[in-house]
This record gives sequence, structure tokens and C-alpha cells, in this order.
Amino acid sequence: MDIVERRRCFRGTQLVIRHAAARVGCTMHVAVFLPPQAETSACPVLYWLSGLTCTEQNFITKAGAQRYAAEHGVILVAPDTSPRGADVADAEGYDIGLGAGFYVNATEAPWAAHYQMAAYVERELPAFIDANFRTTGRQSILGHSMGGHGALTIALRNPRAYASVSAFSPIVAPTQVPWGRKVFAAYLGPDESTWQAYDACALVANAEAHVPMRIDQGTADEFLHTQLRPELLQAACQRVGYPLDLRMQEGYDHSYYFIASFIGEHIAFHAEALRL
Amino acid sequence: MDIVERRRCFRGTQLVIRHAAARVGCTMHVAVFLPPQAETSACPVLYWLSGLTCTEQNFITKAGAQRYAAEHGVILVAPDTSPRGADVADAEGYDIGLGAGFYVNATEAPWAAHYQMAAYVERELPAFIDANFRTTGRQSILGHSMGGHGALTIALRNPRAYASVSAFSPIVAPTQVPWGRKVFAAYLGPDESTWQAYDACALVANAEAHVPMRIDQGTADEFLHTQLRPELLQAACQRVGYPLDLRMQEGYDHSYYFIASFIGEHIAFHAEALRL
Repeated sequence: MDIVERRRCFRGTQLVIRHAAARVGCTMHVAVFLPPQAETSACPVLYWLSGLTCTEQNFITKAGAQRYAAEHGVILVAPDTSPRGADVADAEGYDIGLGAGFYVNATEAPWAAHYQMAAYVERELPAFIDANFRTTGRQSILGHSMGGHGALTIALRNPRAYASVSAFSPIVAPTQVPWGRKVFAAYLGPDESTWQAYDACALVANAEAHVPMRIDQGTADEFLHTQLRPELLQAACQRVGYPLDLRMQEGYDHSYYFIASFIGEHIAFHAEALRL
Repeated sequence: MDIVERRRCFRGTQLVIRHAAARVGCTMHVAVFLPPQAETSACPVLYWLSGLTCTEQNFITKAGAQRYAAEHGVILVAPDTSPRGADVADAEGYDIGLGAGFYVNATEAPWAAHYQMAAYVERELPAFIDANFRTTGRQSILGHSMGGHGALTIALRNPRAYASVSAFSPIVAPTQVPWGRKVFAAYLGPDESTWQAYDACALVANAEAHVPMRIDQGTADEFLHTQLRPELLQAACQRVGYPLDLRMQEGYDHSYYFIASFIGEHIAFHAEALRL
């Protein structure tokens, strides 16, 4: 583990680290915020997954989350959004390839070689964090847009591994919207039955256990009706009685101004679940 | 006035506006955060001046200040750091020309034509803000690094115009450090007596009135001993009995992680002075 950045922040420490990640076959950058409590005791971990075009930097510079993590004694971990490197496949467009891993395990060439972000976030990253920092073993997950999709699908596939899940402006039905259909066809191939493991709406229909779930969605979000469509997840949850706290936030858009406005409430929500 | 950006944020509104600024002879971008209280009542104004290389964007995306402005009912105004445009002089180096206005009124060619940032921030900008938004007429000022120098010198030259002043990692003695000496020689010419009006240490020596003044400085700041040297202002204040609350913050560097960690305390400090 290399430390790329180390900065004092809210009496804790904001790190950016770099580690060799076997599953994605490249060096991954990860932001780790250690709250002041981490100096003397083990802390639970909250994983943040970012959206399209982001790196590990966006969340730590723009969300203002460290204040709340320091308040609640939670370690924040924010990985990059795709594998990176000269030998990693890419394609034209901000919504596929680098910066657009979509938190799936790709099966198709040329993507399968490195685009294994589901396995990385579910298994390799938590093992790495637990091995290198003093954690309680309790974890939760949240994210934004593509990262909200990642958080929801990862928690839904592993309901006993996460104390809670939340999302800002998530893509809840990737198999039904342009962003998801484009990359799933590329990463997973034409057989749509393989896509269902990465679709929150499909996953709630077969959920074995309920993870406390909150979603905040701005009503002025430019992607609301085309790519996000939270009403599809609401309907899927209602059909099976899956509890969902969906909050439509009047006038907010898709940006970090929205995330910053509500990240404190999300961290408090997770901190409560992580204490149980 | 053109509105370039409008975003909901902490139940208030983050604007970026563009206006024709006569004194600097160009179109200036200014960020204005209106707290929720501004919808129903007049609010006081807190001016933020940014550091070298910044635009009006850095503070509004990275400091997390809107939360506290919304809490205290304060309008935040953050202008760009220099005149901009195809006909505005520039030179090699991040520390002179565009992004480096240094909050002075330049007298030398080619700078004098547009680099009138002292007059802009002191006179034209407040007049513009008071004409376009419902303000109480009370104002305070703060800033970072070059902007900390700007805030201190503007408040010291106009002690009755500002309820309070504060700074993060300010350049307190520009006439004695490399950053200041380089640009003052270019913008103001070789006669160093003209530089004194823009040097906080020189200004406190002749202060007619005391403005409540707070400075936070990180001990791990990479510019602390070369460009910032807060001990020079501390000594200047002690010589004349000017009250200064200088706080050395252990382990913090020069970045927005430092600003974010203490901006809440600064806004509370100003809000109290603005209520009087």
C-alpha cells in the first residue's frame, strides 16, 4: 500500500492510497478518511461509490462528508470508478470504459480482462481495508448515480454483509434505461438474463433479507425521467413489500451541491445502523 | 446581470453570476450563495476572497461553507481572483497575472488597465451586490492565502465598512516575501512606499479602528515559513495593541481540507459580529 496523499481534515486524516488489485488486474486508487476516533479504537466502514467520469477525488473534495464521519466515528472509503492503466480497454464516450465501470463483472472482450468492479468492491476492497485499518467488521454502502446503482445492487446481492444502504440519484433500473443498456450489452453481452444480477429492480424482487434502504432524489435532476426513474424501484419494492425510504427533494439537481446538502443525513442514517 | 449557474443547496440557492465590471474593465464572474432566510428577509453579506490560481468556483465546490451560511442566514459572495478576458495582461507563472490579482490597484503598464481588484472588491462589488440582492448593509470579509491578504488589507483600510475579518493561511507581509515582492514590483512599480497600502503588517501599525480579526494557520502548511509568516503580523499587532486571534492548527496544510475543517467556526465568528 502506497500513500499518495495524506491531509489533516476535521481532526482526522484524509488519505489517498494506491494498491495492487488482483481482481481488476491494475493499481487502484482509493480514498480513505480516518475519523479522529480511529486513532484509539476500531471503527465501522462506510463505502462510497462515485458516478460516471469520477475518480476517487470527487467525493473527498466536494461532498463535505468528512465532518459527519468525524462526528460519528465512521471510516469513509471511496474507490475509483473503473480499472485504470495503459492496458485497460476504453471506448468513445464518457459513459463506457474508463470512469464507467458500472460495478459489474464483465464477461465480454475486451472488457472482461479488467472490468471486474463488482468483485473488487464486494470482496477485494473490504478485505484490503480490514487488513490495513482497524475496523469493527461492520460495513455499509452508499453512492451517487452510477455509484448509487453500484451500492444498491451490491447490498441487495449481499444483504447480510451490509448494515444499511443508501443512494443519491441512483440508476435503479439499468436494464431499462439508455446508460445501462449500452454498457451492459458491451460488458455482459446480448443475453439479457445475465444483466439481472446488476439491476436493483430485479434484485429486490428476489431479496432474501431486507437491508435498511434510503434514496434521495432531486426533482430538478436533469436525468430523472430518462436514466434514473426511481418510481420503477418504488413499484418493485411495493410489489414484494421491501421497505424503501425514497425522498424526493424539491428543486435539487444531479450535482455535488445536492449530495453535500444531504450527506450528513445519510451518514447519520448509516451510523445508526452500524451501531446496532 | 446574467445568471450562469443556479443550484439548490442546503435549502438555499447557489448562484454564479456574470456582470460588466467598470472598474476592472471586463466581465466578472461572482458566486453568490443565498441562504434560505434570504427568501423572506434581508441578510448580511460575507465576502470570500480566494487564493492564487482560483476562480469563483473553488470556494463554492470545496469549502462546504453553504451549510453554515444557511444555518446563520448569511449571504456568501465569492468573486474571481483577477480580471479575465482576451485583452487582459498576463505573464508566465501561476503567481502573476490571471488568477493572481492580489487585490491591489495596479499603477504600472500593462497591468493598470484591468488589475484594479482592490477598488472592485471594496467598492464596485458591494454596490452591485447591495443593488441586486436584499442585504442588511452589514458586511464582513475573509479569504485564503492571497485572498487572506486581500481580506486583511481591505478590512484594515476600511475598518468601519466591515464588522469583522478573518483569514486562512494569509500572506500577512507581502512586501517581505517572494510572492508579494514579485507582483508588487510588477503591478505597483519599484517605489516600495506605494506597496505599504497593501501590506497587513504595515496597515495595523497605523490602524484608526479595530476590526475583530481571526486567523487560522496550519502548522504543516508548505508555505508557512517562506510566504505566509504569521509571526510578522502577530508582532506588528502586539507593537500597537491590535487584538488578533491567531490560531495555529496542528498538522493542517494549505489546502481546502484545512478550510473545510474550520470554515464553520469562521462563519459563526462573522455571523456573531454581523448581528451586533
